[in-house]
Formats: sequence, structure tokens, C-alpha cells
Amino acid sequence: MAENAMCRLNPVDFTHVKIENRFWTPRQEVNRCVTIPHQYRMCKETERIDAFKLNWKQGQENPPHIFWDSDVAKWVEAAAYTVSTHPDPELGKLLDEVTTLIANSQQADGYLNVHYTVVEPDKRWANLRDCHELYCAGHLMEAAVTLYQATGKRHLLDALCRYADYIDSVFGRGKGKKRGYCGHEEIELALVKLYQTTGNRRYLKLAKYFVDERGRQPHYFHAEARERGDDPKTYRAQTYDYCQAHKPLRDQSEVVGHAVRAFYIYSGMADVAALTGDCELLAACKRLWDDLTQHKLYLTGGIGPSRHNEGFTRNYDLPNETAYAETCAAIALVFFAHRMLQIEADSRYADVVEQALYNGVLSGVSLDGTKFFYENPLASLGNHHRQQWFGCACCPPNVARLLASLGQYVYSTGAVSLYTHLYVGGQATTQVAGQQVTLTQETNYPWDGDVSLRLAVAQPTEFDLMLRIPRWCSQYAISVNGKAVTTTMSRGYVEIRRTWKDGDTAELTLSMPVERVVAHPKVLSDVGKVALQRGPIVYCLEECDNPNVLSLRVPKQAKLTTRFDKRLLGGMSVVEGEAMSPSMTGWKGKLYTKAEDVKIKPVRFRAIPYFAWDNREPGAMAVWVPTI
Amino acid sequence: MAENAMCRLNPVDFTHVKIENRFWTPRQEVNRCVTIPHQYRMCKETERIDAFKLNWKQGQENPPHIFWDSDVAKWVEAAAYTVSTHPDPELGKLLDEVTTLIANSQQADGYLNVHYTVVEPDKRWANLRDCHELYCAGHLMEAAVTLYQATGKRHLLDALCRYADYIDSVFGRGKGKKRGYCGHEEIELALVKLYQTTGNRRYLKLAKYFVDERGRQPHYFHAEARERGDDPKTYRAQTYDYCQAHKPLRDQSEVVGHAVRAFYIYSGMADVAALTGDCELLAACKRLWDDLTQHKLYLTGGIGPSRHNEGFTRNYDLPNETAYAETCAAIALVFFAHRMLQIEADSRYADVVEQALYNGVLSGVSLDGTKFFYENPLASLGNHHRQQWFGCACCPPNVARLLASLGQYVYSTGAVSLYTHLYVGGQATTQVAGQQVTLTQETNYPWDGDVSLRLAVAQPTEFDLMLRIPRWCSQYAISVNGKAVTTTMSRGYVEIRRTWKDGDTAELTLSMPVERVVAHPKVLSDVGKVALQRGPIVYCLEECDNPNVLSLRVPKQAKLTTRFDKRLLGGMSVVEGEAMSPSMTGWKGKLYTKAEDVKIKPVRFRAIPYFAWDNREPGAMAVWVPTI
Repeated sequence: MAENAMCRLNPVDFTHVKIENRFWTPRQEVNRCVTIPHQYRMCKETERIDAFKLNWKQGQENPPHIFWDSDVAKWVEAAAYTVSTHPDPELGKLLDEVTTLIANSQQADGYLNVHYTVVEPDKRWANLRDCHELYCAGHLMEAAVTLYQATGKRHLLDALCRYADYIDSVFGRGKGKKRGYCGHEEIELALVKLYQTTGNRRYLKLAKYFVDERGRQPHYFHAEARERGDDPKTYRAQTYDYCQAHKPLRDQSEVVGHAVRAFYIYSGMADVAALTGDCELLAACKRLWDDLTQHKLYLTGGIGPSRHNEGFTRNYDLPNETAYAETCAAIALVFFAHRMLQIEADSRYADVVEQALYNGVLSGVSLDGTKFFYENPLASLGNHHRQQWFGCACCPPNVARLLASLGQYVYSTGAVSLYTHLYVGGQATTQVAGQQVTLTQETNYPWDGDVSLRLAVAQPTEFDLMLRIPRWCSQYAISVNGKAVTTTMSRGYVEIRRTWKDGDTAELTLSMPVERVVAHPKVLSDVGKVALQRGPIVYCLEECDNPNVLSLRVPKQAKLTTRFDKRLLGGMSVVEGEAMSPSMTGWKGKLYTKAEDVKIKPVRFRAIPYFAWDNREPGAMAVWVPTI
Repeated sequence: MAENAMCRLNPVDFTHVKIENRFWTPRQEVNRCVTIPHQYRMCKETERIDAFKLNWKQGQENPPHIFWDSDVAKWVEAAAYTVSTHPDPELGKLLDEVTTLIANSQQADGYLNVHYTVVEPDKRWANLRDCHELYCAGHLMEAAVTLYQATGKRHLLDALCRYADYIDSVFGRGKGKKRGYCGHEEIELALVKLYQTTGNRRYLKLAKYFVDERGRQPHYFHAEARERGDDPKTYRAQTYDYCQAHKPLRDQSEVVGHAVRAFYIYSGMADVAALTGDCELLAACKRLWDDLTQHKLYLTGGIGPSRHNEGFTRNYDLPNETAYAETCAAIALVFFAHRMLQIEADSRYADVVEQALYNGVLSGVSLDGTKFFYENPLASLGNHHRQQWFGCACCPPNVARLLASLGQYVYSTGAVSLYTHLYVGGQATTQVAGQQVTLTQETNYPWDGDVSLRLAVAQPTEFDLMLRIPRWCSQYAISVNGKAVTTTMSRGYVEIRRTWKDGDTAELTLSMPVERVVAHPKVLSDVGKVALQRGPIVYCLEECDNPNVLSLRVPKQAKLTTRFDKRLLGGMSVVEGEAMSPSMTGWKGKLYTKAEDVKIKPVRFRAIPYFAWDNREPGAMAVWVPTI
């Protein structure tokens, strides 16, 4: 394993974390038993998997698309996490078949890409800007690394190392090499994973090259376009902002362009910065983080408001009904936040992991596991619904791999500390201060804020147990073995320093009232509106619970209550209260009237977690509700 | 003159109405002295006028565009109204030159269209759907009629009659004729004007043919496209809704498609219905009116919310910032409302004439008369500004001709009645009950609601003086010669029936408090918001008066006052009060916070008439303001 120069923390990886939790276990089970098989079928039916047989011939229908390799790679990754945490011979067999097919599609020189092997063999590396060639390579590398970690099987990892070696022979600053990089970033973080898994610094160096080269002048995408005989001005996106290549990454301060691309490369930047001790690059990551979280982040953890560029616009531009907020982008944000968290050990990053995870990521998949959102708007007139699959199918397998890998986001270890970032019941086993520690977490989070953490140690061991106090929480209590303890706060974590004995139990109680949240006054879409949040869960009002939902207003003084509704969608906490509803009668023939003529009557409203919307009758929905 | 079978009223035409009014006289003077000369220069510089010399040759730059004839025609119409009400030898000379040029461009067979004479002579009538050929003819007919009414000069009228005769020989149900009609309606209402001016029923019959034929099956636009060798499916608009040709007009009940097209044809329908006694067609007009006013009309009188089709979408879809609300469309609405008013003598039509005129029409031109809005949104982030001209320059001369023709919208006569629709100071002379009556109106409307109407009659004459009580007015008082009188209400008009003697004066006082207006709860863009209106004037808040204007909220109980600010933009009434402004401090590093943590402070706000926005420093603007 490789060094991790600047990271304060190391995540406890998914192979050492078991999830047993009322909230997450059913979601992982649906992912394992429904979503992953469903996605296999979709990949199979759409010929994405068999494409690796390289049988497609010119003139045939359904030519393998430039994205396809990545869709299958993400499915492999999701399935690999899953067979590790839930051994399943049938899924294991499928996984062997698919990964063998992939590995066998590798060319003699190490190249491994279906489209450019069978459809446009003469165009290899000809259009890095648009054609996702290195992006697909990156996803295959991630799949290979995960498969190896999960199962110990090396066949795909070996193939991808050969592919990475070949890529390294093509790209770089050396004589005769292409000074290119991919229009859709991804390979950078993947090469870092390959380095961390193999210890081969060549992959880290190549990742660093891709990060450093991006956006330099003379611009590679310009030269490359001309070499193809294209006018660079015909670039569909019009601007290299779109792919974060408008200037060198380390000079960037503003989150721009395609949201998934942005947060994949920021993740790669954070990795390279941490592993090479590059403070300048890390500073850029922090500037980008601040820009995002202060100006461009939806309350749900969604990012990228615009369909136009699948990405970012101007500060405070956070429209609700037209929010693009691609599922993949919220997932990419989790990746970046998770990396920054390891570097900085600051809860503000974990807060955002949690915010995205429980809201804008989880909304991406239906509760039954068979339908997916590409876009995650914060309001709907009733015409936005999940779909079984997409022609561009990036989101479904991305959410599958994230849910399958959830364990790795829960804990980290520091030098003499064990961090709990997320309150997810289950068990983790890891080394702290040279000792094996097993931590068993029990909680009904996010429906309530009581968390119990029991430690099992072979012998008494002194270390800091670090418990995250979420940003949304303004009151909490902590005890150990039933007794109050003195604690200090460190970057958003309560630090319980003691010599832990076997069976010691820390109890954390996070007070979790329903909060009315308001947005910065410059967020014009939310002026005069509130959102309801309880714990990490952002709520929304759906038409099937609330007739004329988009006309409702929530009085400032309205009492808001919460209760667990076990019959609702498998059981979840709802928020209820009194709203004011303008009368729909008395309007005959009128479109406008004097304010004093409108009757407003109180009605009961019910809000459900945002992630669970569009799982019942189709209808309108709103997160932000006007106040009165 | 022709009969007017179903009209209860006849407008008093612009040659018999003189405007002398604090509000309108300066606007007409700017129109006459600045806008009309400015538009002449623009037409000249862009070669629209000299194009009628037919000198353009294949291969030259700047080929005459299919719209150009109509731009010049509207300028002629505006100038003709103006020389009638304000004789001006210089403008008269220009008008003679331009109209002689137009008349001289007529071909031997009567055809008169620059583009299809010099640019695509082989494509005459080949693409009625897209190419505005009959639309241009219609505008030229309107110009010719107005020139004749204004000056008695027949040269253009005669040319356009010859053109109309030629068109009549080409289109219709007779053997060998084309069963076509124009993709952009306009010629229908123009042919009716030609009929009303010449008494030649051929033109009315042709108008009726165009109205009746539209939208029939087999569809002309389908056949025409195939004849050109085009696939009808490639129609840019995708649907014949766009040009109201999806089904026969008399079967239509829903306002659809391109807004200007819609309201030009509805105007033509109303004309044809009235003049031919076609109750079925009139019923369609009323259904369309109801659909518009109950579901699709901006408070400003703007119509057509979407840029996509320059027109209509679904009911209650009235977005503010992205409102298209083309100036031409508000003008077209005035045309339709004015026609329905003559037919029905119901103030609801005059209310809409007033609503559009003082708001969404007048906003179309800057106060200095040199810049124009194509789109009239009801909110702006500060990036929407008037322009000197447009490549597609329909709006500037359209607003010029409407302002120049204002006189004809003020009064109508019935059998034994004289109607005052608008409160505009000045004088009208007309025949009522067989006697010449001169009515002198004095008022400071719309800034206050006191109106004095003095009658001059050669001998005492019994008739009904009908004074419109605007929909926005809930309290009014009426006296004659200083004494209260008994009156009855008839379709929104106060009816003062008496034998009027020379010098009799009716006094009307319309109470004009500032009103808070709310929209139907289904207008989602306006939920939780109010607009301020006083009299017919809709107000808006501009950033230059109100920092952070888009974050302000107006409390329900806020006292609203009004005062006349004589230094503001030539003098206008403003509305002032107290708003609540969320503090912009305390947000450092935060995009969201708990509602109770936001400080809100009271600030004074000032609202100005919507029509006058964007005449000072550029900035944000809102008509609808969230309440609190």
C-alpha cells in the first residue's frame, strides 16, 4: 500500500464495515436483490455486455456506443462491493463471466475499449475532448480495483494495469507522447485507486500528469480538433469551462461546467494533492469547495442547476422546478467530499456527504429499486418521473455502486483516533493505536437521534473516539457507560479521549426537531420560502398527500410535528402541520383579484422525505414552500 | 361605407379625436418627433425602404427579407395617423416618397412583394406556411387604408386594391384557385379594413374565405409542403397549433400557438363574424376571449409566456422572469379586445384594452422613444434591456402605429349613445342621435380618477352618455353640472340618460387607492406574491430604487401610499411603503440557515409604473413581490 502524505484520516474500507440498520439495510437489500439484477438485464438486453465479445461488424445495428464500457464497469463495481458484503454465488458467477469477457476484450497492445476496437478502430485517441475514451478506461480501472478488493481476483486488475501501462506509454510529456487528457474526467481518480491498490507509482504519476496538464496553453483540444480537420469553434459546449479545461486546475477558484466532470476531477485533484503533498493543488480544492457550498449547492446535496450544460451557471442560481441536479453529480460530490474529509478531518465535508446521501443521491432510485432519476428537481408540476433505464445510462449503475459501497463512508481512523462520520447501524473492525478495535453502532437514525457505540478491544487502549456533530444539530448529549463525560470539540467532532475497555459504550443523543430552513436572500428561487428538514432529511410536499400542493403556504408560527408512519413506503417519519390554502372557489371567470377578496383556509399538510418522492401516485411536489 | 351587421358600437375614428392630456400628449409627441423619425432612419439604413426600388440583384449582400415590407408598412401607418392628427409637411413629404415607392413596386399583374419579386421570383405563393407573403400584403393594405383616411390620398389604396383583386384571383374555392391561407395571419383583418374603406364586398368575402378555410382537412400546409418537395414533418413549429391552423377556427376554444398570429386572426374572426352576422364564429371569439382572460393573461396585459413558440403554453403558466409577452402580442390583444368591445358593448373588453395599453404595450418603448422591448418580462435579474432595433423589427413600428392611433380607442357611438371607454383628455366630435356632439374630456388620469366631460351640442339632444367604470374601481361618484344624478349600470358602463344641452358637464370620480392584487392560486409563479396596482397602472420595483429588490417582501399589513413625483422620468405617481428585507450580513460561508436565525429589517420601498421600467440605471425588477 502506498503512502498518503497529507491525509489526516484513512477510511475504514467496505470490506471491514458491516451495515445492519433499519434505514440502510433494506435499501442495500433492494440494491442487491433488485437493482443490480435489473441493471444486469438492462446491460444484457441493450447488448452492452456482449459488446465486449467484439463481434459487432460494420453495417450492423446498435453499434457499441462510446459510453457503454463505463456502464458495464459501474455495474461490475456495484456487484463486486455486493458480493463482498453479501456473498452470493450466483452474482459471483455473473461477475466472473462479465469480467472475464471484459479482460478478454483487451487488445495485444493493452488497449481495452469496445467502441474504438470494433466501430472506429482508426479513430483511437483522435477525439479525447468528446469521446470518453479515457473516461471508460477510468471506470474499468475502478471496477478492477473493487473486484480485487472484494474478491481477491486479479484477472481484471491485471488487464487494467496493462491498459494503464499502455495509456502511460501514449500520454505524457515525454518525447513522442500525446499531451492530451480526457474531456470527461474520471481516469485521474481511477489511476490513484490503481496506485493505491498496486503500489505502482507510475499510475500516480500519470494521474498527476493528467491533473497538471489540463487547461494548459497551447490547448490540446484546439490542436486535436485541427488535427481531425475540425474547427475548434464548432465545439458543442462552446467553452472549455464545460470540461474544466479553460485554465490549469490549480488556478481555478470557481466551480464551472458539467457537474459530474467537475466533481470527478476535483476528486482526482484532492487525491493527487494528498498523495503528492501538493499544497497549491489542495488550496484550489478548498477554494472550489467553498465556492460550491457557499453559492451553488442545493439543499438536497444536488449540484448543477442547468440542463443546458448538465452543470453550473452563476452564483445563487438554484431554480427548483428546472433543477438538473443529476444523480451522478450528487454522487460525484460525495466522492469529493469524502476525499476532502480524509485530508482535513473536518466535519463540514462529512456534513455534505450526509446531505447528498440522504437526499439528492437516494432520490435517484425508486424504493423498489427498478427506476431511476437522471434529474432530481426540487419541485415538479407532476410530469417528472423515474425511468427504468436511459440511453445514456450513467446514473443507474452509479447509484447502485454508491449504495453497495456505503460502508466505506461511515468510519475513518486517524493516528490515535476512530472517527464516526455517519450514523449507520452495524459493525466495523479496524486497527486503532496498533490495536484491533470493533465498533458496534446501534441507531434508528435518521428517524431519531439516539446512537449507541459499543467498543470491543482485546486490551484497554487509549484513543480518541471522534463523533460527528452534524451541522443541523444544535443540541446533543454524550455519555459513556451511562455517565456524562467531558469532551472537547475538534473540527465538528466531539472528541472522547480515554482508555477504552472492552464493552465500553458511548451514547450520543442528537436533538432532532423539525427545522424551517431558509436560503440566502440572493437565491431568488427561494425568496419568501422555507424548506422543512429534520436531522439530515430534507422533506417535500407531494400532491397525493396535499391537494393543490403548489399553492400552499406554511405560516411562520405553524406548529410542526413529526411521527413515524410505519405504513408509508416501508416506514418513514413524516412532518405534519397546518398550512394555509387559498380557496379555489370564488375565482369563476377571474385570473386576478384583490388580495383581501381571497379566502384562505387552514389545511393539514403532510411532508415526506424528499428522497421518497414519486414513489406513489404521480403528482406535483415541492421542497421549498412559500411562507405566510 | 359598409354595414356592420352585429356591432352594437362604432368607434369614433382617429380623425375625429384630438388628444390633449398630461399623460398621453407627451407620449404621442415623443412618438411623432423621435420614434417615427428614428424608425424611418432604421428602415432607411437597413435598406428596407429602398428595397421597394427593386434594384437588388442576385449575389448582392443584404437581400430583401420576407418580413421587410411589413416593417415599412407599419411605419407608413404610424406616420399617416400622425400627419392626420399633427400636420407636418416634412413627415408628409417622406410619407409621399415612401408610399410612391411602394406603389411603384407593384407588378403588372398587381403583385406587390419585394422579396418574391427580386430574391425568389420563382417561389411566389410556394410557402404560405412560413414565408409571410400574405401577411406583408395585409400590412400594406392597413397602411394604404390609414393613409387614405388620414390624407385622402388614394395612390397606395388603389395599388393595394389591385393587389387584393389579384390575391382574390389566386386564392379561394373557385376552380383553379389555391385553397391556401397565410401561416402568419394578418391579411384577414386588413381585407376587412379594405372592405370597410372601399365598400367592395369582394374583400370581405376574401377575408371570410381565409377565416373559413384555415385548418380544414385535407390540410393545405401539408399539400403545399409536399408540392415544394418538403416533408411536412420537418415543419419547424412541429404543430399547426402554432399558427392556429390545427382545426377550423370556428371550432376552436383554446388560445394556442404564436401569440401575435393568434390575436391577429381572432381580430379578423371578430370582424368577419360581425360583418357577416356569423354567430357561430362570434361564439368561438367569445370562448377564446374567456380562455385568455381566465387562464393566460399577464396582469400587464402581456400574452404568450413562452419564447419557444413566441406564444401560449398551458393554463396558468405565467412565469415572470421568462415571460415572453411580446410587445406585438399585447398590441394584437388591443386589436381583438377593441373589436369585441364594438360588438358586445361590454366594458370587460375595454378593461383589457386599458390594461394592455397602460402596461404591456407602453412598456414596449422607452420614454425617450428610441428603444424598444420585444419581450416584456414581469421580472428581471437586470439583464433585459430595450434595443434600438431588431433584425426582426415587428415590435417598434407596431407600438408606433398604436400610439399614433390612440384616438380611435377612446370613444364609440351606439344608436342613441356615446361611449367613453378610456379616460384620455381631449376632444371628440361625432354624430349621436342624428346630431353633431362635441365632447371635451379633462382629466389627470391615470394619476388621479377625476374626469370632467363637457358636451357641446347645437341643440338639446337626448342620448345616453355611457361612462366605463373600470373593473379595478370599487367606488365612484357621478354628477352632472355639479348635481348628483340617478344612473343605471349597463355591461360595466354607467348610463346617464338625459337630454343633453350645450355646455352640460358630467363629472366622474373614480376612487383610486393602491391595491394589492393576487393571482389565481394555480398561477404557480405568483403563489405567495402580490402585485401593486393603482388605477390601471401596474407597478414594479426596480433595483435602482430598492437595493436587493428581488429579496424584498411586502408585509400584508404594510401601509401603501402614493404621491406624484414630478422629477421622476417626466413625472409619475409612485407607490411607497415598508417592505421587509432579509439581512445580507450574517451569511458568511452559509447558503442555508435556520429561519429563526435570519434577521429581517424594515426598509422603505418605492414602486414605479411597470411601463416605465428600464429607463434609468440597469438593474433587477419585479412586478410580483413575495408577501410576509
